[in-house]
Amino acid sequence: MTRLTLAIDAMGGDFGPCVTVPAAMQALASYSQLYLLLVGDPDAISTSLATADPALRARLQIIPAGSVIASDARASQAIRHSKGSSMRIALELVKEGRAEACISAGNTGALMGLAKLLLRPLEGIGRPALMTVLPNQQQGKTLVLDLGANVSSDSAMLVQFAVMGAVVAEEVLAIPCPRVALLNIGEEESKGLESIREAAAVLRDLPAINYIGYLEGNDLLTGKTDVLVCDGFVGNVTLKTMEGVVRMFLSLLKSQGEGKKRAWWLTLAGRLLKKRLARRFGHLNPDQYNGACLLGLRGTVIKSHGGAHQRAFLAAIEQAEQAVRRQVPERIAARLQAVLPKSD
Amino acid sequence: MTRLTLAIDAMGGDFGPCVTVPAAMQALASYSQLYLLLVGDPDAISTSLATADPALRARLQIIPAGSVIASDARASQAIRHSKGSSMRIALELVKEGRAEACISAGNTGALMGLAKLLLRPLEGIGRPALMTVLPNQQQGKTLVLDLGANVSSDSAMLVQFAVMGAVVAEEVLAIPCPRVALLNIGEEESKGLESIREAAAVLRDLPAINYIGYLEGNDLLTGKTDVLVCDGFVGNVTLKTMEGVVRMFLSLLKSQGEGKKRAWWLTLAGRLLKKRLARRFGHLNPDQYNGACLLGLRGTVIKSHGGAHQRAFLAAIEQAEQAVRRQVPERIAARLQAVLPKSD
Repeated sequence: MTRLTLAIDAMGGDFGPCVTVPAAMQALASYSQLYLLLVGDPDAISTSLATADPALRARLQIIPAGSVIASDARASQAIRHSKGSSMRIALELVKEGRAEACISAGNTGALMGLAKLLLRPLEGIGRPALMTVLPNQQQGKTLVLDLGANVSSDSAMLVQFAVMGAVVAEEVLAIPCPRVALLNIGEEESKGLESIREAAAVLRDLPAINYIGYLEGNDLLTGKTDVLVCDGFVGNVTLKTMEGVVRMFLSLLKSQGEGKKRAWWLTLAGRLLKKRLARRFGHLNPDQYNGACLLGLRGTVIKSHGGAHQRAFLAAIEQAEQAVRRQVPERIAARLQAVLPKSD
Repeated sequence: MTRLTLAIDAMGGDFGPCVTVPAAMQALASYSQLYLLLVGDPDAISTSLATADPALRARLQIIPAGSVIASDARASQAIRHSKGSSMRIALELVKEGRAEACISAGNTGALMGLAKLLLRPLEGIGRPALMTVLPNQQQGKTLVLDLGANVSSDSAMLVQFAVMGAVVAEEVLAIPCPRVALLNIGEEESKGLESIREAAAVLRDLPAINYIGYLEGNDLLTGKTDVLVCDGFVGNVTLKTMEGVVRMFLSLLKSQGEGKKRAWWLTLAGRLLKKRLARRFGHLNPDQYNGACLLGLRGTVIKSHGGAHQRAFLAAIEQAEQAVRRQVPERIAARLQAVLPKSD
């Protein structure tokens, strides 16, 4: 493994350095060739670093930033006043080649906008898209995009998302000839929004894409497809709905039977069983797959949940590490030209 | 209780009379004042009725229909050729006052279109909406609409959905001053589609509506709101996503530990615990709340899942029975004029 440097927006997210710094230390402990640039308020970062292992600390550098983009700021305004902010500096480090990827839990709209501005889209890509990898019931993985990089999408954007998803599924997840589906409100051709029907017509005629048709919301986790494509609004709502239901189940499971007096053997068996159930469902826990990859740019940007805790933010760092090692942007760029329909 | 007559499209759904007829018999057994009109192919219905209790059979009448609207037919085309179909005749029975409500598991688009054509929207309502009632984590209920009666919605439609949802929550579910939220991809005012932001601006200024702002997909079941409003595409995908995740959990729960050899006490405790978990999660089982109510018409129409089995189709019949008893259309009509902004 070769040396790898990532830039972290240490101030982003609901908890800032309280979460990003311990997660960064954990990542350094796990990957001996990893170097991290922590961008943000040096005082706040240093406080969180007080008890850090000096050996790991040596592979970490603080990059000072004078401001933080508020998570509830309007994206356009935030971008206009982004100079000197932790998020912008982290992205600039990627642009300048000082870091190979950037991770932020900050304002999604600002991150998308700034990333597009600074790292620019790949040729053939109008708008980047947020993608995540979900575990499915077939023990496989399903890529879902867009998760909210764009509020709405026309058919050309949906086709580009499909191509990018297919490339990542094939090149990174090693799924040969990955199945690609469009998320819709019915499986019949006549269903849904015009943009989706138009995208379907284009995808059906693209020989390089294994397009399998429409799928509905209930197929998000069934593994019927390898890539599921939708517009950013729908993707965001769908993913959050799924996460809400999974969290509710996991918390019900955890609290089940607590505080009740019962026979020792029932208590013991209950604990054993709950452990097994938690293991069986645990892979669906949103913390396990936190981190959405912004696809379609000349660089790697990972968006973490704003509310991510240490374990989840670590998962986002790991995703950045993998995306860089597997050269996601380069592989997309290389395949894009061959796959995308020529615009003439 | 007074006598009540419902019309059932016996041919609709994936299973037709095999499901609708036994569910109808079960409903008749449960409600002694219920009379049912089963619309469809008399031979097919009679076959399914072969073993029916004659006492119940006396409260059931077969209304012959010569055709069935295919579930994958394009709505516009299906409506044009709907004359004599089981779905259309069932709706006509409501229009003519022979039945007080109609239940169908058939083609959603055709049902929406025909219902609007035959039963006409209430004054002040541009487009009817599909609504369902979901159980939430606070032991309460959350009304969600639109679930797909319309593919897209402008701000005026979203406002009308909000008003109808609030009226049903207050008048039918007896929730005083029900909270109303818009489903969006962030809680900040600047987030989301223009139609949603415009609807929010109108709802904030409507004194009769207790508008509480935006909620995200992960709040579908948290009980933070009594009414959750979204466009039909998003509502459909969200509800189906939730159902898919719930079904997956319930099936994992059911299969947990099956076929494994282990100590008797562990097996016994496992069974006990699974029963408790199933009870705790069971209320989320889509079969328990099947049936979406088409709001905004001068009559009651309940849409059942196409894939509903007997238990689920029975739930749809029961929902029709309740909607009629609680006079949903009349109550909406009565309150609508006072609540809706005057269009001038």
